[in-house]
Amino acid sequence: MTIAQHRDRLDAQLAFVVEIDKLKRVIRRNTLIDGSRRENDAEHSWQLGVWALVMAEHAPEGTDIDRVVRMLLVHDIVEIDAGDTFIYDRVAVEAQEAAERAAADRIFGLLPSDQAGPLRELWDEFEARQTPEARYAKALDRLAPIMANHHNDGGTWALYKVTASQVLANVAIIEEGSPTLGAYAHDLVETSVLRGHLAR
Amino acid sequence: MTIAQHRDRLDAQLAFVVEIDKLKRVIRRNTLIDGSRRENDAEHSWQLGVWALVMAEHAPEGTDIDRVVRMLLVHDIVEIDAGDTFIYDRVAVEAQEAAERAAADRIFGLLPSDQAGPLRELWDEFEARQTPEARYAKALDRLAPIMANHHNDGGTWALYKVTASQVLANVAIIEEGSPTLGAYAHDLVETSVLRGHLAR
Ligand SMILES: [Ca+2]
Repeated sequence: MTIAQHRDRLDAQLAFVVEIDKLKRVIRRNTLIDGSRRENDAEHSWQLGVWALVMAEHAPEGTDIDRVVRMLLVHDIVEIDAGDTFIYDRVAVEAQEAAERAAADRIFGLLPSDQAGPLRELWDEFEARQTPEARYAKALDRLAPIMANHHNDGGTWALYKVTASQVLANVAIIEEGSPTLGAYAHDLVETSVLRGHLAR
Repeated sequence: MTIAQHRDRLDAQLAFVVEIDKLKRVIRRNTLIDGSRRENDAEHSWQLGVWALVMAEHAPEGTDIDRVVRMLLVHDIVEIDAGDTFIYDRVAVEAQEAAERAAADRIFGLLPSDQAGPLRELWDEFEARQTPEARYAKALDRLAPIMANHHNDGGTWALYKVTASQVLANVAIIEEGSPTLGAYAHDLVETSVLRGHLAR
């Protein structure tokens, strides 16, 4: 390709990167680990990418960690249009799915089609949770708010009246992606209940 | 390894991930692309990871993009101790180097040593800018504030009295990592000067 042809494709790529800058303004329920403010989706996505690298040995043997990192970097981009869904709000979670698919069509669709397809597939794979990569990525995504709440005397659990059995449903998802991380999350839940930071 | 042995290593890994959560509170000079607030290092690192994926074709043939992504995810972690350095402040940039090396020793050193070494080497490689991966990663890092300022009528350039020749020194670094991105950055600088958003 000539520099001019590269520049044509670059224009579409720039439209995409300018658009996804908005992810820095999508605010999640949980706070930072120090509790100082609520977290945004962009910094959350960074955090999960680093966690994936650093905790790689807790994924099943043979998991493609670089694929996990790519998946995590784009896993929340649909929330630019669809907003963050609180994972303990079942009705919202179901109503959300169509909105997220439309968001994926629109946002990944800003890219040249040979790039939009593979990134969209990464997001679909994450959501479907059928591969070791998606299961490990999802395990990290579910572990993150448990960690944040654990470091903040229960954090958003009390605020949103979340119970241990609801959190344990997420621990089961963590366990599917990583038995070690599942066992760790289970201990955090037990400790939080014992300390009175999470209702039984 | 048994689950108990995994858990011992996990404790060190968790100490690291809890520590680096602080990167979300290291504030950069430039704003988000929409200008609404200043950017933090964590969301900046996420952004560069996605840019690396999406603009991969503008890196030299054979560049290992997954290695670039890993490098970018950890490239600013030293700023937790050393703080952000404004790239146009030469004195600060030089005084900063020892502080950053000490920060790298301390922070990567929280991990099990078989993990600390390779991550530290990734950071050293980024700083040394001798490989195609490091040059492409650094190009994206230098492009990001130019993009943000371009979208904000010059943004922090006027505030910090930055001139076009200073920005062009960074454009040369972008060009080393990616001729296409260098040409694009050069155009942004020209446009900003013509619009009166950047002093000649
Ligand atoms: Ca989410």
